[in-house]
Amino acid sequence: MKKRSTNLRVRLPVFLFVSQVIFVAIYFGFVTYDEHADARFQTNQTNPMHNDMYKDYPFFTDIQVMIFLGFGCLLAFFRLYGFGGMVFNFLTATFAIQWAILVQGYFQFYHNGKIHFGVMNLINAEFACAVVLISFGAVLGKTSPLQLLVMTLLEVPVFAVTEWIVLKYLKINDAGGSILIHLFACYFGLGVTFVLYRSGLTEGHVKENSSYHSDILSVMGTLFLWVFWPSFNSALTLKGDDQHRAILHTFIGLSASTLTAFALSAMLNKKGKLTMADIQNVTLAGGVTVGASVDMMISPAAAYVLGMMGCTACMLGYKYLSPFLAQRCRIQDQCGIHNLHGLTGLISCAAGICAILMADEEVYGPSLYEIFTHRAPVEGDPKLQELQMLIPGLKPGLGRTAREQALFQVAALFSTIGLSALGGILTGYVLKLPYLAAPSDDLCFDDVVFFEVPPDYDAPLKLSYKMTAEESPDVQHQRVVIQLMDNNMENKCA
Amino acid sequence: MKKRSTNLRVRLPVFLFVSQVIFVAIYFGFVTYDEHADARFQTNQTNPMHNDMYKDYPFFTDIQVMIFLGFGCLLAFFRLYGFGGMVFNFLTATFAIQWAILVQGYFQFYHNGKIHFGVMNLINAEFACAVVLISFGAVLGKTSPLQLLVMTLLEVPVFAVTEWIVLKYLKINDAGGSILIHLFACYFGLGVTFVLYRSGLTEGHVKENSSYHSDILSVMGTLFLWVFWPSFNSALTLKGDDQHRAILHTFIGLSASTLTAFALSAMLNKKGKLTMADIQNVTLAGGVTVGASVDMMISPAAAYVLGMMGCTACMLGYKYLSPFLAQRCRIQDQCGIHNLHGLTGLISCAAGICAILMADEEVYGPSLYEIFTHRAPVEGDPKLQELQMLIPGLKPGLGRTAREQALFQVAALFSTIGLSALGGILTGYVLKLPYLAAPSDDLCFDDVVFFEVPPDYDAPLKLSYKMTAEESPDVQHQRVVIQLMDNNMENKCA
Amino acid sequence: MKKRSTNLRVRLPVFLFVSQVIFVAIYFGFVTYDEHADARFQTNQTNPMHNDMYKDYPFFTDIQVMIFLGFGCLLAFFRLYGFGGMVFNFLTATFAIQWAILVQGYFQFYHNGKIHFGVMNLINAEFACAVVLISFGAVLGKTSPLQLLVMTLLEVPVFAVTEWIVLKYLKINDAGGSILIHLFACYFGLGVTFVLYRSGLTEGHVKENSSYHSDILSVMGTLFLWVFWPSFNSALTLKGDDQHRAILHTFIGLSASTLTAFALSAMLNKKGKLTMADIQNVTLAGGVTVGASVDMMISPAAAYVLGMMGCTACMLGYKYLSPFLAQRCRIQDQCGIHNLHGLTGLISCAAGICAILMADEEVYGPSLYEIFTHRAPVEGDPKLQELQMLIPGLKPGLGRTAREQALFQVAALFSTIGLSALGGILTGYVLKLPYLAAPSDDLCFDDVVFFEVPPDYDAPLKLSYKMTAEESPDVQHQRVVIQLMDNNMENKCA
Repeated sequence: MKKRSTNLRVRLPVFLFVSQVIFVAIYFGFVTYDEHADARFQTNQTNPMHNDMYKDYPFFTDIQVMIFLGFGCLLAFFRLYGFGGMVFNFLTATFAIQWAILVQGYFQFYHNGKIHFGVMNLINAEFACAVVLISFGAVLGKTSPLQLLVMTLLEVPVFAVTEWIVLKYLKINDAGGSILIHLFACYFGLGVTFVLYRSGLTEGHVKENSSYHSDILSVMGTLFLWVFWPSFNSALTLKGDDQHRAILHTFIGLSASTLTAFALSAMLNKKGKLTMADIQNVTLAGGVTVGASVDMMISPAAAYVLGMMGCTACMLGYKYLSPFLAQRCRIQDQCGIHNLHGLTGLISCAAGICAILMADEEVYGPSLYEIFTHRAPVEGDPKLQELQMLIPGLKPGLGRTAREQALFQVAALFSTIGLSALGGILTGYVLKLPYLAAPSDDLCFDDVVFFEVPPDYDAPLKLSYKMTAEESPDVQHQRVVIQLMDNNMENKCA
Repeated sequence: MKKRSTNLRVRLPVFLFVSQVIFVAIYFGFVTYDEHADARFQTNQTNPMHNDMYKDYPFFTDIQVMIFLGFGCLLAFFRLYGFGGMVFNFLTATFAIQWAILVQGYFQFYHNGKIHFGVMNLINAEFACAVVLISFGAVLGKTSPLQLLVMTLLEVPVFAVTEWIVLKYLKINDAGGSILIHLFACYFGLGVTFVLYRSGLTEGHVKENSSYHSDILSVMGTLFLWVFWPSFNSALTLKGDDQHRAILHTFIGLSASTLTAFALSAMLNKKGKLTMADIQNVTLAGGVTVGASVDMMISPAAAYVLGMMGCTACMLGYKYLSPFLAQRCRIQDQCGIHNLHGLTGLISCAAGICAILMADEEVYGPSLYEIFTHRAPVEGDPKLQELQMLIPGLKPGLGRTAREQALFQVAALFSTIGLSALGGILTGYVLKLPYLAAPSDDLCFDDVVFFEVPPDYDAPLKLSYKMTAEESPDVQHQRVVIQLMDNNMENKCA
Repeated sequence: MKKRSTNLRVRLPVFLFVSQVIFVAIYFGFVTYDEHADARFQTNQTNPMHNDMYKDYPFFTDIQVMIFLGFGCLLAFFRLYGFGGMVFNFLTATFAIQWAILVQGYFQFYHNGKIHFGVMNLINAEFACAVVLISFGAVLGKTSPLQLLVMTLLEVPVFAVTEWIVLKYLKINDAGGSILIHLFACYFGLGVTFVLYRSGLTEGHVKENSSYHSDILSVMGTLFLWVFWPSFNSALTLKGDDQHRAILHTFIGLSASTLTAFALSAMLNKKGKLTMADIQNVTLAGGVTVGASVDMMISPAAAYVLGMMGCTACMLGYKYLSPFLAQRCRIQDQCGIHNLHGLTGLISCAAGICAILMADEEVYGPSLYEIFTHRAPVEGDPKLQELQMLIPGLKPGLGRTAREQALFQVAALFSTIGLSALGGILTGYVLKLPYLAAPSDDLCFDDVVFFEVPPDYDAPLKLSYKMTAEESPDVQHQRVVIQLMDNNMENKCA
């Protein structure tokens, strides 16, 4: 790759100001408050404490912490790319949420010529944002902020369209977003990184390492995600016992995958030691794996088993599949999102289908038709009237059988994977356009390209290779690079 | 400045124990539970789940995280002053809240000879605490913990009196506290730092730098503030749609200022790189700018525009106004609070006045008179009875017109700035008293003065200037200082 | 101690997989949803928003943050044991919660042959987990992850039995868990560390130090605990005014102990400087001290005084008692849990007894018999009927007098201390079994034993002793050790 300028002085402001002018124009023309935020919709019958915001805002703040602090810290694990991981996450997330408010607004909250805006839109937009951040994991350290913004610009609409097709036409059950969020994000990200393949990095990169502090910071990110994941998985479920179960299953799934991750980490390490990358990533697998069936009556035991299975698949993926993908399929998946979101998402989807096939009135009571809305009898069916006496306000459904619903889940799975991979590949080609300030190979994983860095930013690195004061900084830098390469080699040989 | 002792062994305990004895005496004599916390006020009609605490406590915990973790991490950005930033924030905040509980309690919650105490007092006290911590930003690194406590001791009553005058006599709308909190805190802090001017620091200070880790820590603080700011701005609004709007506007304002901050940071840097100080501070400008009109029907688009405007003003302030104030006006504003809280507060105030002038029943419906309580008709006005049929329980107001209300906002603006600047200047003179353990110029921004530091606390600094083992520590220290000075010069010349 | 293998490759997976198989078996056989999480229990009368989960989940997430981020960061204060502190906390906590769900489930939530599972069980399990993590503090850095898991395996049942005896038979008031959680955890931990006494560490250990960054990280942990402690102390109180008071008292108690800790830290240091270990630990003493009476009408002033008393005891304990215990009683209490949880727990217990003795209907109104349920009149007492008119649904109690209740508190205190100390000692002997991978003395407090560490993990340490590039790593390591020893000596002599 030829060295191109990475100076952001003109490009980044131009992109951001143009986008913002468009955002403001759309806001002015098409966005108004929803009925819970608009003063005119409140009457003397309105109880202010029954405003929908009070149901949603606590879940929203929890997800905010996950997006900005959880992902931010987790992605800051490279020793020389702490600023990049945390700050580009901040930029990308903010941009993604604003863009998703408008795009999803058009698909989901648009009526009477206006997008109706409230905290619920924010939660939906945070989910779209999570999609972008997961895909970001595939290309971490190898992309400029401008490329990330362009990726966001393209990924959000593709996601919104997929979401709209899957929810509106296929009508699936996927409370935790295992299909729509995790699988979509994974295959989109893999598509992008496939196109952005850098042959110069096949042997690894000298800066592709963590430091003691960056590892600790990254574990903090994991813990933020771990702690608030139950809120993520349950934010969009039905209120009441459904949301309650979603919280319980997520907690159990995460616990199971955490304990399994520690076991496998020690087992797969030749010296019998724990590896921080496993603690940082694989512990979270359970949160994804329970996703598709998180609000169903699957039993706590099944949630536990799902957590263990997801963790095992994820760990084996890191150990065997990721190197294979990188060396044979030209897919350099930087954070291993295919393990943490792809494999686990597939297991989750399969588990969801099993749970759907086994769901019956004996286990769920009449609320079966609330959780699986599309299995409710069609309008006019006498069974519907009967059920409406048990559950007042039950809406007519499509009268699907369990088997039909399962088939629609399968259809959703394949269309999501297809659309996301295609979208990702096309996006990848866009990201190869010149002027997007892609860093050259030797400056990947290095904050010095896009940030004013303090003079000590690579100090621990230099120290660990015992520089002497007599050498000039240039000589030192070269020695660091050489020794890191040696070190990398040793690691590979070991 | 002559070198005075900075030993805290006697001074700090004396100050703290005397204060605490006074606190306990006031608690014993004058503080009782409010009706939501007192067991005697609960009857067989009381629904425990309707206790007011359940409405307020979630907002309280969010603000707690902002105060202790958000400010704490944000202020820890100096490379040798991480303990000071985080720990003095902890001390000052705790002291400020306790003191504010009593002082505000006297002005706002005192009846029947007692201060009535509940979670609502805590939220109010946290706002007073935020005021102190913002002012703290102006003198960060140049004050002893004792000076900070004395500043708190004086600032809280001045703030409580101003708050009482503005809310009780001028009766303004300022849900997010742009006038009362941000402008007050800013001009108080500037007053203090004006008096504490250190001529020895006009050329900058060798230790006035961040390190790689302190920068990351500081961004974490920013993210804590960013994530929970909607709770801060909405904690004291009316419940229901008003609080809902406050959350939405704050989120949009912050997003707009974040995207603008990234654009301007790259644009104003000669090498086209991002500057961490901008990410840490300027991204937050939108939260302040939407403050004064945060619960009004200003439209999401207006919130977006306010965020962009606030951010631009803040960024230009950092670039051009702060150096001017420091060199020409003897105002050394350490964290640039005049940019982040002053300029943005002025814009917010202006926006609030516009929103007030444009508010009418067409947009707000009858709830106009709930949000702008002072515009409600006076007792006995037939219009009041009419409105009370639409909104049961609407209280009579002062019958102000929009224009009158706007004039009162202006009056509040000027009285707040006047009282705070005056209070700050007088406080500054008190802080110059001897025995308050002010650090000498060369020991500013250095934890070694007030903390037992581990031997490695300045290690990365030393390393980045390539010390050799043969030199004695003293020689090393001198070399570090000289090289930092050189470095500083270069930065200035570049 | 002979050097034994610390390789975890077989042991850790075997232990974890066997435990998990047992967990899954119990889940399958005996765990079902409680009535708030089971779809079958919802009828057309059920209001989903009245699901009990909505009352408990916000408190649960707050406690989650304390457990995983608060304890995790706090325990990461050793300079070379940051991974260990944070990651073993993660592992132990996850294991403890799963195990406690099942064990406490049997004692508290078992009926009709099933453990009934909901968010309330999770809160209870988090309390059991807090017990384990406090005990962990006594042996931090000296135990393998396997030993920690075995300790958890034994401590949780002993705790559950003690809890069952104390709550079911002695029926005490202890909302904040000062007796059941803090005293139990403390004396169990002391029992374990007494048996695990290492004579080689009596003179301190060269690695038993913090670094600049680990100290800051640890303060962040303190702040997480500080901020959410009111949720911890109030999670299991009665809803309404009781929970409100618990929040207020905890906040005041923590504030009082924080201000006192700063005063005493400066006062007890010869140079009049602040010590980070005091800020990290002693500031939290107030949260424990108010625990036993946290929901009672003790008055805000009393909460303040309790905070100051607890803090003073804790600080003097660190200064004088801990060294005495270590040198004379063979009790090496690594984090000083006896000061932060033992001494404060005793004061709390005494204060609780005073509050119980002074409680009467004049202060509490009829709700006296709700808070002190065992003082309610027995079934058939005419007074009961009278009270039931004031408080519908009041349950008959045991008709205890205040004095009787106080005696039961004393009985609970002694049985808790007795059972926990005994359990701890026996557990200690189990932990001495071979094959548990205990680290040898020289590898205590060092992440290199159980983790793959990045090459720079001890860089700041090496730097602070000014290594030269010419020496081989081995020579360097030896020099570091020697110099740290010298340094330790100096500290002791100073």
